[in-house]
Amino acid sequence: MHNAAYNRLKARFARIAALGEAASMLHWDAATMMPPGGGESRGEQLAALAGLAHELLTAPVVEEDLEIARGDGLWEEANLALMARAHARATALPTSLVEATARANSACEKIWRDAKATADFARVRPSLTEVVRLQRETAQALAAALGMDPYDALMDGYQRGITAADVEPVFTAYEAFLADALPRAEAIEAARPAPRPLPGPFPVDAQRALCRRLSERIGLDYAHARLDESLHPFCGGTPRDQRLTTFYDEDDAAKAVLGVLHETGHALYEQGLPAAFARQPVGEAAGMAAHESQSLIVEMQACRSDAFLGFLGRELHRAFGGDAAPYAAANLARHWRRVSRGFIRVDADEITYPAHVILRFRLERAMIGGTLDVADLPGAWNEGLKRILGIVPPDDAKGCLQDIHWHDGAFGYFPSYTLGAMAAAQLMKAARAAAPGLDDALAEGDLSPLLGWLRAHVHGKGSLLGFQDLLRAATGKPLDPSDFTEHLTRRYLTA
Amino acid sequence: MHNAAYNRLKARFARIAALGEAASMLHWDAATMMPPGGGESRGEQLAALAGLAHELLTAPVVEEDLEIARGDGLWEEANLALMARAHARATALPTSLVEATARANSACEKIWRDAKATADFARVRPSLTEVVRLQRETAQALAAALGMDPYDALMDGYQRGITAADVEPVFTAYEAFLADALPRAEAIEAARPAPRPLPGPFPVDAQRALCRRLSERIGLDYAHARLDESLHPFCGGTPRDQRLTTFYDEDDAAKAVLGVLHETGHALYEQGLPAAFARQPVGEAAGMAAHESQSLIVEMQACRSDAFLGFLGRELHRAFGGDAAPYAAANLARHWRRVSRGFIRVDADEITYPAHVILRFRLERAMIGGTLDVADLPGAWNEGLKRILGIVPPDDAKGCLQDIHWHDGAFGYFPSYTLGAMAAAQLMKAARAAAPGLDDALAEGDLSPLLGWLRAHVHGKGSLLGFQDLLRAATGKPLDPSDFTEHLTRRYLTA
Repeated sequence: MHNAAYNRLKARFARIAALGEAASMLHWDAATMMPPGGGESRGEQLAALAGLAHELLTAPVVEEDLEIARGDGLWEEANLALMARAHARATALPTSLVEATARANSACEKIWRDAKATADFARVRPSLTEVVRLQRETAQALAAALGMDPYDALMDGYQRGITAADVEPVFTAYEAFLADALPRAEAIEAARPAPRPLPGPFPVDAQRALCRRLSERIGLDYAHARLDESLHPFCGGTPRDQRLTTFYDEDDAAKAVLGVLHETGHALYEQGLPAAFARQPVGEAAGMAAHESQSLIVEMQACRSDAFLGFLGRELHRAFGGDAAPYAAANLARHWRRVSRGFIRVDADEITYPAHVILRFRLERAMIGGTLDVADLPGAWNEGLKRILGIVPPDDAKGCLQDIHWHDGAFGYFPSYTLGAMAAAQLMKAARAAAPGLDDALAEGDLSPLLGWLRAHVHGKGSLLGFQDLLRAATGKPLDPSDFTEHLTRRYLTA
Repeated sequence: MHNAAYNRLKARFARIAALGEAASMLHWDAATMMPPGGGESRGEQLAALAGLAHELLTAPVVEEDLEIARGDGLWEEANLALMARAHARATALPTSLVEATARANSACEKIWRDAKATADFARVRPSLTEVVRLQRETAQALAAALGMDPYDALMDGYQRGITAADVEPVFTAYEAFLADALPRAEAIEAARPAPRPLPGPFPVDAQRALCRRLSERIGLDYAHARLDESLHPFCGGTPRDQRLTTFYDEDDAAKAVLGVLHETGHALYEQGLPAAFARQPVGEAAGMAAHESQSLIVEMQACRSDAFLGFLGRELHRAFGGDAAPYAAANLARHWRRVSRGFIRVDADEITYPAHVILRFRLERAMIGGTLDVADLPGAWNEGLKRILGIVPPDDAKGCLQDIHWHDGAFGYFPSYTLGAMAAAQLMKAARAAAPGLDDALAEGDLSPLLGWLRAHVHGKGSLLGFQDLLRAATGKPLDPSDFTEHLTRRYLTA
């Protein structure tokens, strides 16, 4: 009886996941293949898939089955708990609120594009105010259903198993580190000669072949993946059919190469998820911060390491020819590890990136908590950036209008970026301790010692554990920013 | 109240259609883009989409709403009738039969591939026997629910609005024509000098560019279409996002060029369907015979006409260079209008193709009617082919094992090919009468007079009319094979 209920739930969630997989493929197609006139019918297809998945998830029979189902074993119990959580999140929100949110987000996002182009915050203020109002309502409804703080309830939608109370001291400690480290890193940078320029142009065909070769070399299985082009690079698809994209610039091969290494980190995570729980909640990736930790451990920890840069330089030279000197590891490091404080998050270096996230985390918590009005956002932004990086953006396009997230209703997402960067450093330290030959292998472009460890301690765990528990099980401690600051100190503060 | 029920049904069928569109995109992706290891999860996605569409279609509330709904106007009434038909077809079959059929078809199709490769009918006989048993059961269940003859009920699943009683005299008349015409066409062919060979190779890039240019020239809107490559060419996608495929052979440009013109005919039909009824049953194409009529009116009637071949020869010469003489219209006609009796349907010319279909129509009717045992199929095939074409295949691989259709459970489909070819001739004659400049335009590669007429009389009608009524409304008479035999006489029997 209990098992029958569990099996019914399993079949239902497998169906929900299959609809999600179909939607993921259609999103990939829209970004890479779809002719320009296909958007309207694609919208109808995605709406039908999302609507049916929501109905399957919120059906009353789910609640009945959840009450009597019992999972036999650790994974099955965790699977049931995740089903219950998904059902609770989906049923917590009245349909009217879900629909109003979808409309408000979509309207605001459109207006935001114009407001950003003209650096005119006043233009988007009314619709952003409405988005925030609905996000607060959503947060409160979720908080009541899940027994959480409202902001935590939003964050939980992106990354389970960590709260703002965990994040706050970590970010405060980072601010203290930054106040000391950033001027020192800048002084070291300023004392160095400028890097030798990398000779271009870099033919797109050669870049494409190189990106394919490198991603395969570091472990991507192309029997279950492909690499295409899109305006905004991403990694989508399903665990057994990963779809990576990048964008090739003839004048700058680094964009595509480093971008593909980043997306490969995401794809390796998906390809390593536990196949026995495919299309079950417990078989999915553990969350967005966990996902970002996997793209960053590959891109930032492994592939921008001194060891790997030597290999990468030889590969670049082989692909593009010309003078070998600019491809020396030390010169590549100068290019790809420059520290400079700037206004734009997506252009930021490894040291200053968390500052951008901390600013947004504080501001969005205040908006959801009701202590910051949308009208006061530009001022609060500029003050906050001045306090943490000592600079003030010339206009709101380079300030609070730069990111799509809030204007599309994504509150609680930003911490994932920096939690991922910090977790990547913590996991890398643990992997190095467990696999002493890891760096020697990196020097040959071989990530298999790292990948083997990640398969066992992260990828293969699926969603069995929340963020903090995943780190505890893998590294012996919850999130500890000192592994990240140690990494930065070694990389940027050693003259 | 009546309108509320109609609107509920409209919303439900729009959702069902959106699921079908999603599935169509995923099928296209599987044939063109998917990495080799993506099949298992693709299967799960397609099964979820098909299962949900079936549940939406068979839900008890559909029957309740169909009873009280009223459509305001001709199109709405037809739409309701088509909804009722779809619901009746879907509910006529018990789930156990649907599942047994899916399993039997899939098992037989796999075995058939081996049986065909080894020309060993005995190998597939047991599983084909099971497929036929289940098709007979299906036909009887559908016949009871729809008030039709069992074979007609199967045919109705592919093409509505024509019965075996309509088809039988048409095919008998064609047999009489063929007995006289084929030897004469062969004699004319034999008396002619051999055509000058077309010089190859034909670089794939040049073929690709030419196929794109030609399809666009004859009316395909690439804002709502794309052209890719797959092993078996097809046309899929949605009306506003058509996905055409072809296969390029460096030694033979005709395959891709004529193939793309054929698929463009299908795509033009889809692009011309009534947008006001998008994702409604009445807004869909009228059936498979109707669809084939549109690919063949473009490929066979328009693009293999003397007028168009002149234009096409100039385009081919422009694309591939070299000596211009082989690209003269008369020489292309020699190549692409050769008559010769052979064993293989898909390789057949315009005159003998219907003979292959008539043979299959007779045999599959007998199998569904219970007067032909599967064990006796090879003998009946060989006798039938001898009677109609005067030849006997050397083995069953070139005989009753050549097509996938029966081995995959598709009974009632074959007539669509020849009904389409005949309808194409009938529609072309009517279009010529209505648009006197049609052939002058063809000589410039301009199909717009033909396309304009088809938009008004076929494409824009969606599924408003069944096959015979569609022809009646467009040409003033039901299916009349004499327009087709007239066309063949003009093209093949004039020395």
